[in-house]
Amino acid sequence: MVCSSHSHITATANHAATRADNDMFHHLNNPIYGVLIDSIINSYLIQRCGYSTSGANHIGLVANSYCDYFGAAHYPGMLDVGLRVVKIGNSSVMYEVAVFQQGEEQVKAVGGFTQIWVDRATNKVTPEGVPKSIREPLKPLLVGSEQAVGAAKL
Amino acid sequence: MVCSSHSHITATANHAATRADNDMFHHLNNPIYGVLIDSIINSYLIQRCGYSTSGANHIGLVANSYCDYFGAAHYPGMLDVGLRVVKIGNSSVMYEVAVFQQGEEQVKAVGGFTQIWVDRATNKVTPEGVPKSIREPLKPLLVGSEQAVGAAKL
Amino acid sequence: MVCSSHSHITATANHAATRADNDMFHHLNNPIYGVLIDSIINSYLIQRCGYSTSGANHIGLVANSYCDYFGAAHYPGMLDVGLRVVKIGNSSVMYEVAVFQQGEEQVKAVGGFTQIWVDRATNKVTPEGVPKSIREPLKPLLVGSEQAVGAAKL
Amino acid sequence: MVCSSHSHITATANHAATRADNDMFHHLNNPIYGVLIDSIINSYLIQRCGYSTSGANHIGLVANSYCDYFGAAHYPGMLDVGLRVVKIGNSSVMYEVAVFQQGEEQVKAVGGFTQIWVDRATNKVTPEGVPKSIREPLKPLLVGSEQAVGAAKL
Repeated sequence: MVCSSHSHITATANHAATRADNDMFHHLNNPIYGVLIDSIINSYLIQRCGYSTSGANHIGLVANSYCDYFGAAHYPGMLDVGLRVVKIGNSSVMYEVAVFQQGEEQVKAVGGFTQIWVDRATNKVTPEGVPKSIREPLKPLLVGSEQAVGAAKL
Repeated sequence: MVCSSHSHITATANHAATRADNDMFHHLNNPIYGVLIDSIINSYLIQRCGYSTSGANHIGLVANSYCDYFGAAHYPGMLDVGLRVVKIGNSSVMYEVAVFQQGEEQVKAVGGFTQIWVDRATNKVTPEGVPKSIREPLKPLLVGSEQAVGAAKL
Repeated sequence: MVCSSHSHITATANHAATRADNDMFHHLNNPIYGVLIDSIINSYLIQRCGYSTSGANHIGLVANSYCDYFGAAHYPGMLDVGLRVVKIGNSSVMYEVAVFQQGEEQVKAVGGFTQIWVDRATNKVTPEGVPKSIREPLKPLLVGSEQAVGAAKL
Repeated sequence: MVCSSHSHITATANHAATRADNDMFHHLNNPIYGVLIDSIINSYLIQRCGYSTSGANHIGLVANSYCDYFGAAHYPGMLDVGLRVVKIGNSSVMYEVAVFQQGEEQVKAVGGFTQIWVDRATNKVTPEGVPKSIREPLKPLLVGSEQAVGAAKL
């Protein structure tokens, strides 16, 4: 399932596009979507999961990222950014983010990344995998995924 | 007068700081204030003055810019950005912008720039100077300046 | 084949990392790799293919992008960026870019995007597909791909 | 004295402009000069003065910054960035940076900032002021300033 409408988004943020975000074609420069994806995911980890970027003894390494583009957002204007979690594995989390121009229904871009949780000192996965303090607050974002509570069995 | 409190701000914007805005000290990287200053001024020109970045036959060249830093804003969090106009000259406009971390009274940074309005084709000032379509919607932002309607005569 | 060593790179650029590129972990913020990927590809189009971002009657829309991360680059320091072309289709081009910290052998990130060439006015693909002026100068970048001149037949 | 030609620059860096640096007018977005200024100064502090952003017990707070614009640089292309030191005070350092488009004589922008060296824990200036480990390697950059060795007495 692609997060192509507002229906499966469970955490959201509003971003005022900046003039620096626009490219020569008067549209959001593509890498800016990566900045928005990175920001909403880490905001959730810091503000909802209590993750400390300076003090925690585990870190979430990004293994790979992707983005699919369906339209062009622009400055000036507000962007709506929505986050869901696709899968929580033993040591990994897959996130998906959708970006909308405020007031328009069609999604502009859908992207995300896979994060591997490792020990900060050794850079290696641990038996605990995704720390419980991270895992639990991420579960409500599984809406619409195969791991969602009450997901249809096929 | 320095725009050091909320009292003289007449146009505002909210910005969600992005993770890319933070520097190695977990604070907003200084040049990011320049991005915010640039964004609120041009948003006002485009959205309130009807300025067309692609079609207008005059452009506003930035002659110089400055920023004074009083504290450190940070991601994650919302930033309040406020704009006022310090002076409208024959061909120039001086803007001042204040940046606050939402929910905190103390201003984090105050900066701005001076813009010279020129003909797009020749890059030279014209007899008209600041176009009337720009000048009129900027006047309400003169609150607190020497040019404000009703400003105290010394 | 993944462009994981210097051997298949045919166009290169050097980038001095900026302080703004670093994140709170003192490493390049992940979306910055997207900026580097975007920059080397478009530099090649502008400088080697003569592409005019303002005047050409066709544009290259990015359909999707990806990046795989193998290590962490950092400011201060120079980055080596290498470009190759994976495939030239009728209307599409697939690019792959590798990023190295200068002086280190291991690749830090490999990413790229797929670009669809369309008419600027209609946003639709044309019978010509990828314009010849773009297609020809891209061919030398096919080194190591299935379309490379002299590629092994299976 | 304004650092308006190559003659008083004593530390330099080359930057490949990125596509994200350009604004809607196909020129470097003004705040990007702030990124370049910030980068060359901190590169010098880290690479030549041995400053550790994570471990040093003093930090350099930026009190204010400025930039004067004389022309427009652009992507794609290389930028030459030059640094000099205007003044080393008891606790403060004033830097000036000039940005050139490679191959062009006329300077595009001249800017800088004033940095106050404080104790990392208390955020206050110390009797030592600018640490000796920082002060000594900065002295060769005073070329052309009133503090330069051999500067003309008036």
